[in-house]
Amino acid sequence: MSSSYLGVGVSPGNVPVYHGSNLKVIDRRLKVAEVILRCVICGLAVLAAVLIGTDTQVKEIFTIKKKAKFTQMKALLFLVVTNGIAAAYSMVQILRCIASLIRGKVLFNKPLAWAIFSGDQVMAYLGMAAVAAAAQSAIFAKLGQTELQWMKVCDMYGKFCNKVGEGIASSLIVCISMVVLSGFSAFSLFRLYGDNKGKNNPRW
Amino acid sequence: MSSSYLGVGVSPGNVPVYHGSNLKVIDRRLKVAEVILRCVICGLAVLAAVLIGTDTQVKEIFTIKKKAKFTQMKALLFLVVTNGIAAAYSMVQILRCIASLIRGKVLFNKPLAWAIFSGDQVMAYLGMAAVAAAAQSAIFAKLGQTELQWMKVCDMYGKFCNKVGEGIASSLIVCISMVVLSGFSAFSLFRLYGDNKGKNNPRW
Repeated sequence: MSSSYLGVGVSPGNVPVYHGSNLKVIDRRLKVAEVILRCVICGLAVLAAVLIGTDTQVKEIFTIKKKAKFTQMKALLFLVVTNGIAAAYSMVQILRCIASLIRGKVLFNKPLAWAIFSGDQVMAYLGMAAVAAAAQSAIFAKLGQTELQWMKVCDMYGKFCNKVGEGIASSLIVCISMVVLSGFSAFSLFRLYGDNKGKNNPRW
Repeated sequence: MSSSYLGVGVSPGNVPVYHGSNLKVIDRRLKVAEVILRCVICGLAVLAAVLIGTDTQVKEIFTIKKKAKFTQMKALLFLVVTNGIAAAYSMVQILRCIASLIRGKVLFNKPLAWAIFSGDQVMAYLGMAAVAAAAQSAIFAKLGQTELQWMKVCDMYGKFCNKVGEGIASSLIVCISMVVLSGFSAFSLFRLYGDNKGKNNPRW
């Protein structure tokens, strides 16, 4: 361990060049990937919210008109709201990413890194919960539950169910992208806690 | 930036002592917290699986006997299986943690850190999905869904539902603990990618 430090002492010029350029390439690639992922999330979250939010089907049974709407199922309402939050959050993050790409700065600000990490974590787990709850509701609607005498409502509202299915599929892609992104932001945050505290420490 | 490296070069003896001892304290605390959390997960996951898995209620309607069991609801089956996997996974991880605590070694092995990180991530998201799906099913069972003519089955199987509720609450604590743990393992992994690559690099 001490020999490695001695090595640094003997040839201090090599180290910053060696990993400095390496880190910059990784950082740039990561940031580009992040912008792309956040754009995908933003687009697909809006798509999912619109697909489910505008979905209605009216069915006439004898003389009674029945209307299917996403607000009748709390899980779908939760999914639409979550997608809306995901889209708005991604929009803000895209602006931040573009700003930092233009300025060419690497994220060395711990409070900001913690904020991004926390936001991404919350969004990923919230998305996962929303998709799981909506998928469970959709399964009940599609397959019914004979033992509990819950009927297959999708037999009645086929068109409505298909559109909801597309919305859930879109939300699933949003969710997976957010899980990957939360990995990125964990990397950006925790590598700041790497061994070489001396480097960013004003004492050295 | 180069001045900090020059600083390391001028007084190489100070740096390893400064952060080496700091890291060791954090590492030990993190590892103890990790063992405690993994024990909590193991215990509560077994409790949740037993609570839901052994839950049955027989109801006699006129002369027909009806039995409620967790296997009738796929979400509960999913939750029991997930809790079983979480308990087994935690058991293995506890043994690993104790072994590394006894040996007093700090995790500097990237493939192992990646494996632990990946496992913890999968468990956290799987747990979140299972809890969300089961909670959604429980809400339907408890409140029904009038528009879809899904009846409140918990009115009939009250005792069964209460025990399932306890199981889901226990699973929720398991899930939250796994989310916290996945943060720990992200920290353990990504700090290995900190700036000072020279230190663990055999080249220096």
